[in-house]
Amino acid sequence: MSAFRTIWTTEDRFVEVIDQRSLPHEWVVVKLLTYKDAEVAIKDMTVRGAPLIGATAAYGIYLAVREMVEQELDGSFLDLAFTDLRASRPTAVNLFWALDKMRAALDNATDFLQTAWEAAGAIVEEDVETCRMIGVHGLPILEAISARKNGETINILTHCNAGMLGCIEWGTITSPIYQAVQKGLKVHVWVDETRPRNQGANLTCYELTRHNVNHTLIVDNTGGHLMQHGMVDMVIVGTDRTTRQGDVANKIGTYLKALAANDNNIPFYVALPSTTLDWTINDGLKEIPIEERNQDEVKYVIGKSKTTGKLDEVLICPETTKASNYGFDVTPARLVTGLITERGVCEASEAGLLGLFPEKY
Amino acid sequence: MSAFRTIWTTEDRFVEVIDQRSLPHEWVVVKLLTYKDAEVAIKDMTVRGAPLIGATAAYGIYLAVREMVEQELDGSFLDLAFTDLRASRPTAVNLFWALDKMRAALDNATDFLQTAWEAAGAIVEEDVETCRMIGVHGLPILEAISARKNGETINILTHCNAGMLGCIEWGTITSPIYQAVQKGLKVHVWVDETRPRNQGANLTCYELTRHNVNHTLIVDNTGGHLMQHGMVDMVIVGTDRTTRQGDVANKIGTYLKALAANDNNIPFYVALPSTTLDWTINDGLKEIPIEERNQDEVKYVIGKSKTTGKLDEVLICPETTKASNYGFDVTPARLVTGLITERGVCEASEAGLLGLFPEKY
Repeated sequence: MSAFRTIWTTEDRFVEVIDQRSLPHEWVVVKLLTYKDAEVAIKDMTVRGAPLIGATAAYGIYLAVREMVEQELDGSFLDLAFTDLRASRPTAVNLFWALDKMRAALDNATDFLQTAWEAAGAIVEEDVETCRMIGVHGLPILEAISARKNGETINILTHCNAGMLGCIEWGTITSPIYQAVQKGLKVHVWVDETRPRNQGANLTCYELTRHNVNHTLIVDNTGGHLMQHGMVDMVIVGTDRTTRQGDVANKIGTYLKALAANDNNIPFYVALPSTTLDWTINDGLKEIPIEERNQDEVKYVIGKSKTTGKLDEVLICPETTKASNYGFDVTPARLVTGLITERGVCEASEAGLLGLFPEKY
Repeated sequence: MSAFRTIWTTEDRFVEVIDQRSLPHEWVVVKLLTYKDAEVAIKDMTVRGAPLIGATAAYGIYLAVREMVEQELDGSFLDLAFTDLRASRPTAVNLFWALDKMRAALDNATDFLQTAWEAAGAIVEEDVETCRMIGVHGLPILEAISARKNGETINILTHCNAGMLGCIEWGTITSPIYQAVQKGLKVHVWVDETRPRNQGANLTCYELTRHNVNHTLIVDNTGGHLMQHGMVDMVIVGTDRTTRQGDVANKIGTYLKALAANDNNIPFYVALPSTTLDWTINDGLKEIPIEERNQDEVKYVIGKSKTTGKLDEVLICPETTKASNYGFDVTPARLVTGLITERGVCEASEAGLLGLFPEKY
């Protein structure tokens, strides 16, 4: 079990989340009292990570129902809440999935408020269980490495944050790690800072610190050198979208680490809930459009100022220099050792995936 | 010819350098009046880059001679200057080379002051000529790509700063680029920011801006994606040390770009003055020790504060997180398409290098 969750309910049946924009420097809790609060939390990235966005939206619907009941509003208020929440982050697959689930539950409801409360809770628990099972299936990989090293420390390299902070509990890549640590295995994590937004430095380092997992921050340039010198036993990353043939779209820079792992015969695993599998596409390089984000994320770095002790941004290049900011890259299946899902571990190929998900034939 | 030099003499026969720690945000010139001024400029990294450090030390000796003559000090003062300057950056090969040249010149001198002045000037001009010739030999590679693309823009990716700012003029990797631009070829440079010290963002972007070379800043994670999508025609980087068999030690992260270039059939060139060839070692991975630097370079990012407009540092991870900071990595010769030297271009192999430097048989 993780040391904390990213979203939880209060005794008076409201919802609280962590303001992740303040991590790792401050722990700020935000109480959501209305569906608009939930919408804003998603929009302004108080919460981030597909599963957590889905859960926040689900509780947003619960809050809308509560407002409707308490203020005796009609059904159009709830419709508005669905519309607003659906538009809060336009590309988040889990968001639509969670809202559809809430809609289906309410369609058959007699007690709206209780139904919404329970349906949102079920969405949260389903994610927790999915992540827990990724850990259950990933753990034997870590145990095998530990056994081969006679119990010496396993060195794991990861990129970005595919941890519990983007989910509810456990996380995806962190689930086998937390479970290994709880079982007493010695684990050390190399954390790529993950420019430009530094989610590795900000978030992965934060949650590993909170869970007492031994870790070291490195710049994204360092992994190849570590692998050349036997300092990495495995790489494990998350994914935003994985194709039918096992190509993996993940945070920009993932492909470079996969190349280095391949060049040094180091296993490269991807941990994923099956909700991120896209069965409709095959060739990730040709078929996955890569988001281009604002150039200021590259030109300015956010952190806690040494001078003022407050959050600030510093410009690292000439004012006039333009920057490109591609959010993701695609790692071809040939570079992926295995996919760790809630149903088990498989080869990164159509055959491998269909072995675990035969209903997708 | 570059738009400016990194070190120059004044009418009153003193020496001026740019305070490179303020780049790209401010242009600060520092006048060196004594050998101690030169020593401090090297030590505190007002100047950086092996050739520029060598030139600054050479003029440091000239300044010591001038102090000695003007203040009627004895030879022990000059000996002290040699000792102090030699200790100013303990691992810089060019520093020792430049000081040895100055010592040899002064050993045979009658007019100390004039000899020191001329010897330091000769060291500067020798570097300028070496860099110019790297450009002369590298230019045909760019011309061939331009011809293949029917004159369309050549996209070149580089890592760190192997530009004129670390030399006197031209630079190493920038010399073919500046010469291509002067010849009217269309060139665009993808500049890796080069964490942790961001010399790409700080320095390469600065000098390309000053020379009106079209460029775009990217995070170090981006190069693989660009290469997968045909947006890079060649990679060119510098080197700190190249072995007899052509293994290349350069700024951390270079190896990852070489892997990506290799995976996408993109030529990967290394530009180097022959002074950085180490003929005494073969296997770069086994024989080159990699410097570990202070972890705060990873944990804190330096730049111009958005709030105060002044240089500041921001912390990007939890206070307690530890970081590792390896300065360099080694790119094996098998990933290098060619070495561009002042004598010509050769294969990255002992045979290739000996073809250009037969005196090293």
